[in-house]
Amino acid sequence: MHADLLLDSARYVVVCDDDAAVIPDASVAIADGRIVAVGPAAEVNAQVTAARVIDARGHLVMPGLVNLHTHLPMTLLRGVAEDVDLQGFLELVWAEEARVMDPEGVELGARLGAVEALLGGTTTTLDMYFHHAAAHRGAVSAGLRHVIGPVFFSFPGPDGLSWDERMAGARAWPEDLAKIGGPSVPVAYMPHAPFTVEVDDLAQIAALARESGGIITTHTSENDSENADTIASRGMRPVACLEASDVLALQPVLAHGVRLDEGDRTAVAAAGASVAHCPGSNLKLASGAADIVGYRADGIRVGLGTDGCSSSNDLDMFAVMRLAANLARLVHHDPAAIASSDIVRMATLEGARALGMEGAIGSVEVGKEADLIVIDTAVPHLTPLHDPHTAVVFAAGRSDVRHVLVAGELVVEDRRPVRVDVPALLAAADARVGA
Amino acid sequence: MHADLLLDSARYVVVCDDDAAVIPDASVAIADGRIVAVGPAAEVNAQVTAARVIDARGHLVMPGLVNLHTHLPMTLLRGVAEDVDLQGFLELVWAEEARVMDPEGVELGARLGAVEALLGGTTTTLDMYFHHAAAHRGAVSAGLRHVIGPVFFSFPGPDGLSWDERMAGARAWPEDLAKIGGPSVPVAYMPHAPFTVEVDDLAQIAALARESGGIITTHTSENDSENADTIASRGMRPVACLEASDVLALQPVLAHGVRLDEGDRTAVAAAGASVAHCPGSNLKLASGAADIVGYRADGIRVGLGTDGCSSSNDLDMFAVMRLAANLARLVHHDPAAIASSDIVRMATLEGARALGMEGAIGSVEVGKEADLIVIDTAVPHLTPLHDPHTAVVFAAGRSDVRHVLVAGELVVEDRRPVRVDVPALLAAADARVGA
Repeated sequence: MHADLLLDSARYVVVCDDDAAVIPDASVAIADGRIVAVGPAAEVNAQVTAARVIDARGHLVMPGLVNLHTHLPMTLLRGVAEDVDLQGFLELVWAEEARVMDPEGVELGARLGAVEALLGGTTTTLDMYFHHAAAHRGAVSAGLRHVIGPVFFSFPGPDGLSWDERMAGARAWPEDLAKIGGPSVPVAYMPHAPFTVEVDDLAQIAALARESGGIITTHTSENDSENADTIASRGMRPVACLEASDVLALQPVLAHGVRLDEGDRTAVAAAGASVAHCPGSNLKLASGAADIVGYRADGIRVGLGTDGCSSSNDLDMFAVMRLAANLARLVHHDPAAIASSDIVRMATLEGARALGMEGAIGSVEVGKEADLIVIDTAVPHLTPLHDPHTAVVFAAGRSDVRHVLVAGELVVEDRRPVRVDVPALLAAADARVGA
Repeated sequence: MHADLLLDSARYVVVCDDDAAVIPDASVAIADGRIVAVGPAAEVNAQVTAARVIDARGHLVMPGLVNLHTHLPMTLLRGVAEDVDLQGFLELVWAEEARVMDPEGVELGARLGAVEALLGGTTTTLDMYFHHAAAHRGAVSAGLRHVIGPVFFSFPGPDGLSWDERMAGARAWPEDLAKIGGPSVPVAYMPHAPFTVEVDDLAQIAALARESGGIITTHTSENDSENADTIASRGMRPVACLEASDVLALQPVLAHGVRLDEGDRTAVAAAGASVAHCPGSNLKLASGAADIVGYRADGIRVGLGTDGCSSSNDLDMFAVMRLAANLARLVHHDPAAIASSDIVRMATLEGARALGMEGAIGSVEVGKEADLIVIDTAVPHLTPLHDPHTAVVFAAGRSDVRHVLVAGELVVEDRRPVRVDVPALLAAADARVGA
């Protein structure tokens, strides 16, 4: 069998399927952007003729990480609002957004964020930001699989668009997305939150998503004050707004979901919607600790995200995995509250499922697109290595990621982004913000 | 002025003094192992003739991190006990200790731990493990500033020593320490915990420490069951045992201190003792969340530690800083619960103070020994960089540490340990545990 690339003799392939399979001494063959063989090295190598071989001895191969909630352009706002309360935070962030976030700033920030994400092993992001087309251009230029779409507010948001302009932009998005290109992703629509988008407007977005087969993501119950604001303005809780508008039936990705009550949880589970758990942001902004163990027991799908860099302050999904595992133990007073293999699956296959992309990405299985990361385990902090899932969650870090493939393309090689001149990018970012 | 080494034109020097001073565009000059000048690059460079210059442009210079509670040899036990409850954890750890932890294993594990610590920017550790002399040999061979001493149990511990043998070893420790050498450190004595060391025995250790001028560290109130066990066997809480035995008056470092009640806190603050806060371990083992903001308000000194690799699972003090900052926000429902500059000081100067070493290390000030780390900020996840303290806590990571100096010696240069053959060390560790 011909392959374009062979990842040869990895110490482990961490498959990230539902059985938490791990294959020691394994190879992965890739052709036309897809995985065509995975298994014991002796078997795979014998049946493959590869145009290129990457020596993966001493390395761990796993699916690229799926960051299920972020705002990539906000890399440019990293560190502008620190050690202040929420009101102070929002004032500082909004002022800085007004100053630097025109379409050019958004494209630059998304490009910077995409490079950071890829270097840290993230191959797919569910991004949300205004000037979404500019963000998409920036992110895909680095090689990231980048899910984004128009953002909606029922009032002129930071981009100053009217509702009709938003809807027009949303109707044009499938075609715009196809024109910009990049690794294949679904069309997405992004109402900001039930407290900023009225129920009738949510219903218009749901109708559009049904028509186009698009997915929806929205902020939901991030903290107590968001719940209170929604009840005050809409007469119901955020999840009820999503239910009343038909959004919930479309299995949206609910960003944060920290403060879901029992009724919310029942409705979210019944609908098959997902929660994008962002523990770094939730703790930093003192929103609280989402009970993801409880959510999963209720039947809610949970993926992991970083949130934007103004509240996280980076895009490190390894840090998020470790924090999610630790926080679950704190919340449940139980050192066995959640298995490392579950955490790793949340950061990969469960994220793919939340995006409706489990047929394309999220595990190392034949037929899927080759979104893969190659982690160097021959480092002190991963020695000895008794269990690969535990090592990934509790000891590995972003800097252990050596190679990154998206749809079979090597976009990070030996820790260097292939498509991007990093010093020039950093200089442009510094110049943009005046740092 | 002559200097052996000049760190030339750093983007920032983060001083870590009580004023949280930051000096932009700054140089640091080192002679005979000590800092002889620090300040604006133009001033320092004009007065210094340096034998060697390291270009620090685009880098941040700060004191090496002080890991105030760890068990370095337990690197060899990394990942052996996962996703199990505490009883299962202890059974697995003890079995593995019996299998691999003779003096040779302890020396190897400490050497591996020291390399990992140094690579991640830690220059000083307060270590605790049996076969302490072997651990010390291993750690100082890598160039680490390594505080350790005899460990005490009132029963034969994992090393099988009688009480008299322990006391004899303890009396010999100052001389043994001097013979082994390494960067200067205090003599230390390490009763395991009030529930494993009887009050009369604690009193003997206190007397020895008073006599020799040594410091003491002990596990204290790590979780509720430890408190309950202590009350059941000693008739009083752990802090009361330390008070009754004169240990507390010697300003010990109390490892963990998760479950200190109001009386404990008053006594600890009045004595001038310190807490070594280990949030990674405390969450992973579901011990709870120490209220470090409250402790500090009470006047208790708080430093930061990783704990051993069987419960943390690495020695990453950057991860600990970030988690401590986030956890304080969660505990206090306040995004401004603690400033990043306070977190950074806890990981440096406060740790040094806890060890009685604030005259020697912990900040970038003239006269101190040159324990310094040089962090590369020209990376995507640190761009833009608005505030150095925030960047260190919420975005930097161990892999950003490029150079490390201990007592003026460059022990990590361009991310490579100078004194250690890393591949050989990793192979030895794998061979030792049979991985």
